[in-house]
Amino acid sequence: MTTLISLDARTGQPTGESWPASTTADIDAAVRAAHAVAADWGASNGLARATLLRDLASALEADREGLVTCADRETALGSPRLNGELDRTTFQLRRFADMAERGEPFRTEDDPAVTGAPPVGHPAMQRQRVPLGPVAMFAASNFPFAFSVLGGDTASALAAGCPVVVKAHPGHPALSQRVHTLIQAVLARQGLPAGLIGLVQGAGIEVGVALIRHPLIAAGAFTGSTRGGLALQAEANARPRPIPFYGELGAINPVVALPGALTAQGAELATTLAGSITLGCGQFCTNPGLLVMLDHPATYTFIGQLQAALAALQPHPMLTPGIRQAFDAGVAQLLQAGADLVWQSQGQGTAPGPHLLTVGAQRFMAEAALREEVFGPSNLIVRCADVEEVLGVLMAVGGSLTVTVWGVETDTADHRALVRTAMQIAGRVLFAGVPTGVAVTRAQQHGGPWPASTAPMTTSVGDAALDRFLRPVCLQDAPAWLQARAGVPC
Amino acid sequence: MTTLISLDARTGQPTGESWPASTTADIDAAVRAAHAVAADWGASNGLARATLLRDLASALEADREGLVTCADRETALGSPRLNGELDRTTFQLRRFADMAERGEPFRTEDDPAVTGAPPVGHPAMQRQRVPLGPVAMFAASNFPFAFSVLGGDTASALAAGCPVVVKAHPGHPALSQRVHTLIQAVLARQGLPAGLIGLVQGAGIEVGVALIRHPLIAAGAFTGSTRGGLALQAEANARPRPIPFYGELGAINPVVALPGALTAQGAELATTLAGSITLGCGQFCTNPGLLVMLDHPATYTFIGQLQAALAALQPHPMLTPGIRQAFDAGVAQLLQAGADLVWQSQGQGTAPGPHLLTVGAQRFMAEAALREEVFGPSNLIVRCADVEEVLGVLMAVGGSLTVTVWGVETDTADHRALVRTAMQIAGRVLFAGVPTGVAVTRAQQHGGPWPASTAPMTTSVGDAALDRFLRPVCLQDAPAWLQARAGVPC
Repeated sequence: MTTLISLDARTGQPTGESWPASTTADIDAAVRAAHAVAADWGASNGLARATLLRDLASALEADREGLVTCADRETALGSPRLNGELDRTTFQLRRFADMAERGEPFRTEDDPAVTGAPPVGHPAMQRQRVPLGPVAMFAASNFPFAFSVLGGDTASALAAGCPVVVKAHPGHPALSQRVHTLIQAVLARQGLPAGLIGLVQGAGIEVGVALIRHPLIAAGAFTGSTRGGLALQAEANARPRPIPFYGELGAINPVVALPGALTAQGAELATTLAGSITLGCGQFCTNPGLLVMLDHPATYTFIGQLQAALAALQPHPMLTPGIRQAFDAGVAQLLQAGADLVWQSQGQGTAPGPHLLTVGAQRFMAEAALREEVFGPSNLIVRCADVEEVLGVLMAVGGSLTVTVWGVETDTADHRALVRTAMQIAGRVLFAGVPTGVAVTRAQQHGGPWPASTAPMTTSVGDAALDRFLRPVCLQDAPAWLQARAGVPC
Repeated sequence: MTTLISLDARTGQPTGESWPASTTADIDAAVRAAHAVAADWGASNGLARATLLRDLASALEADREGLVTCADRETALGSPRLNGELDRTTFQLRRFADMAERGEPFRTEDDPAVTGAPPVGHPAMQRQRVPLGPVAMFAASNFPFAFSVLGGDTASALAAGCPVVVKAHPGHPALSQRVHTLIQAVLARQGLPAGLIGLVQGAGIEVGVALIRHPLIAAGAFTGSTRGGLALQAEANARPRPIPFYGELGAINPVVALPGALTAQGAELATTLAGSITLGCGQFCTNPGLLVMLDHPATYTFIGQLQAALAALQPHPMLTPGIRQAFDAGVAQLLQAGADLVWQSQGQGTAPGPHLLTVGAQRFMAEAALREEVFGPSNLIVRCADVEEVLGVLMAVGGSLTVTVWGVETDTADHRALVRTAMQIAGRVLFAGVPTGVAVTRAQQHGGPWPASTAPMTTSVGDAALDRFLRPVCLQDAPAWLQARAGVPC
């Protein structure tokens, strides 16, 4: 049996804590416990859900110092970032609490009966939504709070009325255990069953596969690598009874920087972009991995400005030695596929220096290996002869969480084509700033065409994340007692 | 190359018309033509879409007599049913026209910028929806108008801003050609490209597979058999770039008839149910294939009433000889799997008599073969000892377009459990009447957990069918000219 070992991300040394991986029996017990509470939680009202979510947020805040210390040891993300991420996590929990209390999960659409023959006449119909049931939630390495045990997937599933079994990320086992212990205390205080939020863990893929295969699991939610997500999606589809699988798989997030924008504010944009490339050592699914520019003097000036801005930043250790190795391998693959190194700064230990590479548009479009995400502080500059080539580069990317377009303030045919193409391949299109930093709002869309997401019609961040766990059901000629429940399932 | 031959459904004899199956080059040309118009149609406004949809509806009505005659020859569904289906089809077209004109496809969600640090502060964000692009639409055998060339899938995709390439059903090739000729005339009159609504056809699976594999196809919509739908879904998932596939695969549509309802109005319910079992010779995805009843005197009285009501009805020819053979094979499979024949009436030629079969709940739960849909006028009566067994039977069904529950007018624990379980496995739960007849309304949900649908979170009938073809995109800090487009893509 594999053992999970908590490692200090800065030294790679064990912190002294370790846990056995969950056994098949453990996984079965966690899913059965979640299933046992599914009907009751699904029939709970909005206030009950909101109370749980708010108490979970308060419990995180009450243990802030200990949690951040623990997270920093295991991830090296640093106290400011981790405090900010904790704020975001509690904000999410309270936002979904508000949605539950407002009745969002219980929203109904009424079609009163219309007399007469069809197609005009019809019986009384009411469209409601029912919670899917136990959700398998796969935590991410790079957001130990916001996309982990009590992250957005868990918060939205609970608000929707679904129990959750979390597969903790092996990169931060001590933190996952600590958060789960807090959760259990909150559940006990509220008299809720422990199985409402279960936790399993494992260092390899076996535990996750066993979890998504379990017949009582009703949906999966995943944030992580393309390889891991596609493997789990294949498992979800291969079940005797396939289930929805919401996989957010990362992206290369092109930034199209037109000469107009670079001329107007190149220095400022270079600083902003350098910060985004290196933020959290580039370990973000929204990290800008691609810079698409036209052959123009402003472009060359900008590359120099970007280099200078990157050189001024301190290297930052990566989450795990494995991620560090994968970064080096990813850069090597880009070079092998025909990219040239423009500049790199020296790294320190587990902290790689940022890398700038470049390639021509035609080569980029021809070589699939150039379009693979490199998780870390690298950026591939794609040189385009004209707007037509920029469009071709975007279409070759095909799917991304975000596309950023700088310099389309005026309504021209070229700008329209750029915007249309950007919208065609991305879930979010930015016209200023950088893609890192995903706001938790009503209008957010965090997802995108394949390979960015396995379910591009849905979002894993923002209010609409709730919809992933509620299936529409139409009640026809419902009896009065059922209508009186106002959308709360039985 | 396979030739498509139009057959008279009553005699099985050729009507004299035939067409070559679409070649690979035909399919490629149709998809390329659809792709060529995708950007313009996606950027069209609601009035343009509404005008097209309304003219298509009028064109169908103007040729009503010829269309119904043609459809009746190829399907034997009869003039009253086919006229009704044509009404429903034009109603659908006009309903989606109204939605487009009202601006439903262009609905936006605005989050104005909020100053301050995240997570509270955020940039200006607007959530819009973009049309997916060319949709491959697979027509059904049993609804030659409403789920065929100009059916709900085509209407909703066009309203969403997507071109369509229809794979016609080989059971009614002459009708499909006739409708497509009408369409082309309407497109020409409006000055729209012919490629906006393409048609391909083939007798085997090859044409459909080539269509869903085409790299420029952006989504699939299918109504038909479980086998055909799952095969196409597998193709959609196996593409280098997987795409959404909306497959509506049929169901066995349990009717739970509790003794209270049977005692109160058994004779009336028997007549209604007999009509539903035999409607269109049982060739509906919402045909009630399962009758779940408790061991009670009222149950036995009802079975006699149902038998009498069925005996009074005339047998009706099936759509094709192949469907007739599959019906016989399906009944034989139920008998082999342990069901007993209760009663059957004599058939005539291609018109099978209705069959009533029965089996105990335990056997039903143990034998997967008893849960397979038999497309045609048969019904399997499942005898249950108690409500617990009824719940077990429903859970064994697992997924269905509908569940009907008669006799839960009062709020009791048993009734809640029945409703909860019915809602868990179905897209629509009825408390009166019968599942055949799917109203086209705002609240309709035509879909359900696997195996009823490959995409149970979506509906193929009703207003929400539009949502299947629109992917959310968030615009962050959009320039003024783009915001001024009010949700209409570039």
